[in-house]
Amino acid sequence: MIMAAANLPPLDLQPGILITAGVSGGPDSLALLHYLHSLHYPLLVASFNHRLRPGAETDINFVRAFAASLGLPFVTDSADVAAHAAAQGLSIEEAARELRYQFLFREARKAGAQVVAVGHTADDQAETVLMHFLRGSGLSGLKGMPARIILPVFDAEIPLVRPLLNWTRSDTEAYCRQHALEPRIDPTNTDTHYFRNRLRHELLPILEQYNPQIRQSLARSAQTLQRDYTLLNSLIETAWQKTVRSSGPEFVEFERAGLEKLDPGLTRNLFRKAAFELRPGLRDIDFEALERAATLKPVDLAGGLKTYLEGDSLYLTSDTASLPSTVWPQISAPFSLLAGRTALGNGWFLTCQEMNADNLQAVARSNPDKLTAWLAAELNTGGLQARAYRSGDRFEPLGMPHQTIKLAELFINQKIPQRLRRAWPVICVSDEIAWVPGLRQAEPFKITEKTLRVVKIEFKYEAGQV
Amino acid sequence: MIMAAANLPPLDLQPGILITAGVSGGPDSLALLHYLHSLHYPLLVASFNHRLRPGAETDINFVRAFAASLGLPFVTDSADVAAHAAAQGLSIEEAARELRYQFLFREARKAGAQVVAVGHTADDQAETVLMHFLRGSGLSGLKGMPARIILPVFDAEIPLVRPLLNWTRSDTEAYCRQHALEPRIDPTNTDTHYFRNRLRHELLPILEQYNPQIRQSLARSAQTLQRDYTLLNSLIETAWQKTVRSSGPEFVEFERAGLEKLDPGLTRNLFRKAAFELRPGLRDIDFEALERAATLKPVDLAGGLKTYLEGDSLYLTSDTASLPSTVWPQISAPFSLLAGRTALGNGWFLTCQEMNADNLQAVARSNPDKLTAWLAAELNTGGLQARAYRSGDRFEPLGMPHQTIKLAELFINQKIPQRLRRAWPVICVSDEIAWVPGLRQAEPFKITEKTLRVVKIEFKYEAGQV
Repeated sequence: MIMAAANLPPLDLQPGILITAGVSGGPDSLALLHYLHSLHYPLLVASFNHRLRPGAETDINFVRAFAASLGLPFVTDSADVAAHAAAQGLSIEEAARELRYQFLFREARKAGAQVVAVGHTADDQAETVLMHFLRGSGLSGLKGMPARIILPVFDAEIPLVRPLLNWTRSDTEAYCRQHALEPRIDPTNTDTHYFRNRLRHELLPILEQYNPQIRQSLARSAQTLQRDYTLLNSLIETAWQKTVRSSGPEFVEFERAGLEKLDPGLTRNLFRKAAFELRPGLRDIDFEALERAATLKPVDLAGGLKTYLEGDSLYLTSDTASLPSTVWPQISAPFSLLAGRTALGNGWFLTCQEMNADNLQAVARSNPDKLTAWLAAELNTGGLQARAYRSGDRFEPLGMPHQTIKLAELFINQKIPQRLRRAWPVICVSDEIAWVPGLRQAEPFKITEKTLRVVKIEFKYEAGQV
Repeated sequence: MIMAAANLPPLDLQPGILITAGVSGGPDSLALLHYLHSLHYPLLVASFNHRLRPGAETDINFVRAFAASLGLPFVTDSADVAAHAAAQGLSIEEAARELRYQFLFREARKAGAQVVAVGHTADDQAETVLMHFLRGSGLSGLKGMPARIILPVFDAEIPLVRPLLNWTRSDTEAYCRQHALEPRIDPTNTDTHYFRNRLRHELLPILEQYNPQIRQSLARSAQTLQRDYTLLNSLIETAWQKTVRSSGPEFVEFERAGLEKLDPGLTRNLFRKAAFELRPGLRDIDFEALERAATLKPVDLAGGLKTYLEGDSLYLTSDTASLPSTVWPQISAPFSLLAGRTALGNGWFLTCQEMNADNLQAVARSNPDKLTAWLAAELNTGGLQARAYRSGDRFEPLGMPHQTIKLAELFINQKIPQRLRRAWPVICVSDEIAWVPGLRQAEPFKITEKTLRVVKIEFKYEAGQV
């Protein structure tokens, strides 16, 4: 499909925007530059010297002169790709790409350009797809290169665009001939030491014996797979927004009821995404484990990560994570209770208020809220303290005068998650426990008919507050 | 990965179910049969004679004898594959598959088997994926063969299973050697006139030079793509269930508000699915048209199909479709109105009731429901008739005594969809229009202070009723 400029597909680029064009001087990028210029786009020509071969400097000068002939601004830079590759443990190709893109986006930001354009063609696309195919990639690889993408490692806002992704390499060569452009030929393009060049010069010609239109077929595959990939990712993202309640460096908290409404395949993908966000270096996650986790059963995943149910939340977390709790308060350092509101962290607040006892005895007795208590103020002359549970803690529970029980046993009976016990709050008067919030008040501090003043203590979780 | 039976992956088959095993006598199917037998599955051995080569009969007899040696029941059948291919315009391979599967599922039904098992291996999977790759397929092709699938053309309930999909061909050969099985070798397997054989014997060995584990890599790709494919399809199916209100041979009716809540990519896929259900022979649908349609604008798609908005519905339909309407009633043959309820079809009902006029004058005047009217019974002595609009219809609208207007003009003024006008109901007394439901009552039949008896007429849509 040799295309004259007249019947080229319409560009998916807003007219008049400033474009930074990455130009090597080869037929693809030269055609790109000439074509964008013919469409009257304001352009910044950017050419990166990889210093990988002797002729590199000559190519840069060629591009500089070409830009000047079109009256376009030109920028260049260079770096030692080989050294960067060695230092970062990258292949030469990976290192070259990283440094080149850093340069292009840096220049685009400086110039206030809205996009960075590069000259990848349908042939490049076919090679990319073939490379991923040979590796046994999934959708994310087989979809190839998108025509427009934000690459956050290079810039969070300026997209990379590939206006020639529907042109074949022979289209760009024909374009160059037609416009009497004389592109530079990079001798490393035929160096079959590079895997990509082996695909281009050896394997694709073989595949053409099986399908003469193989390049176009692969480019078409890439296009449809890209749509599926984008849709799937968008649906996963929507599900993520709907079900993730909170997250930290060592956990992601999902709303369990939200997960129950999802397709289990979607849940599997959420857990996969969460695991890779917590452990970016993770190689793979056992599919069967993900599948079991998607049934919302607690499961060991990979990299020390597991799923864990608590109240209406499902946590994907490491064993060592310190998880917030929306169900029970936690306390770190001890402190004395003062009237008013004290922030406990993780969205929890403690409120203290002294008041007349009045009719509160009945209210206190029938109180269903385990995080609110009324204590007799007269008995608190030493002042009230809040502190975390200590191993060995005992107290005299309400309704069981002259008997003490171990708080540890109460934790077990009430099935309090192990991880929450260590920082469980207790309210004390001097050294005596007056109330174990969430569990039980102590007999000695209950309010009676004789009580005149009470202290109302309340723990409260407020979503969105810290 | 040569696997001894001891460390084979666990079978995803319920223990003890009756399996119809398709056995050709080659290493794969022979290993399959022997392996399933060693796991104590009840088996029916089924061998199909494709009559494509001289030795076929010998192979069948070999399988028969092998089944007998294991004490298993055996069935066989044959058909003229070449003739079927010619008659149906299929390739020899397609025709062979069709006739073989028809046979296997027929025998499975007869025997009451719960699954049909075939001996496809990871090598077959790699070849299948490669074949689709060379064609430029999307996800549905690249995902390869699933380990379990319902093929409705063969049977709506019995699944086809492929227990050896994680075995390589050398695994099955090793298994045969290990158990002293002597499989038959089909000479057509090496006939490179068949495309699949060319891939197996020519292309895959070349690809091994680029990735020595290419077969396993492709099988792995297939597995992950299958998950993505299944998830996407399941999400599309859920969206379909949620948004499709009704459908017929020439239309699919979507709930517009439901579509508005969807990811546009999902909407695009719903329209694509609808188009292929209405036009199974459709080759392709223009992606840009689908994309525009997904913005819920009316768009021409392909094969004479278009999207069309009406009330809270979006129809994907042909130009010639007779669409139901949930907003306005339609009428076919004329009829005389009787007391009681008459079904008009498509969920619409007409109710007629005579009653005392009492205080109905005010009610009738302030009636906001355009599908209910009260007509003066005294004036209807000739009886009320319902019929469809006729071109040229005129009437004297309420509030405009002694003037007549054309119903056609009213249609235009009220923006009634063209397609609904032809069967628009009118209520007549003799030849005079008394009421145009949905639009306007006629002046001569209005109820006045003198009216003693009225006829209440009501059109009503009841979802789910026909």
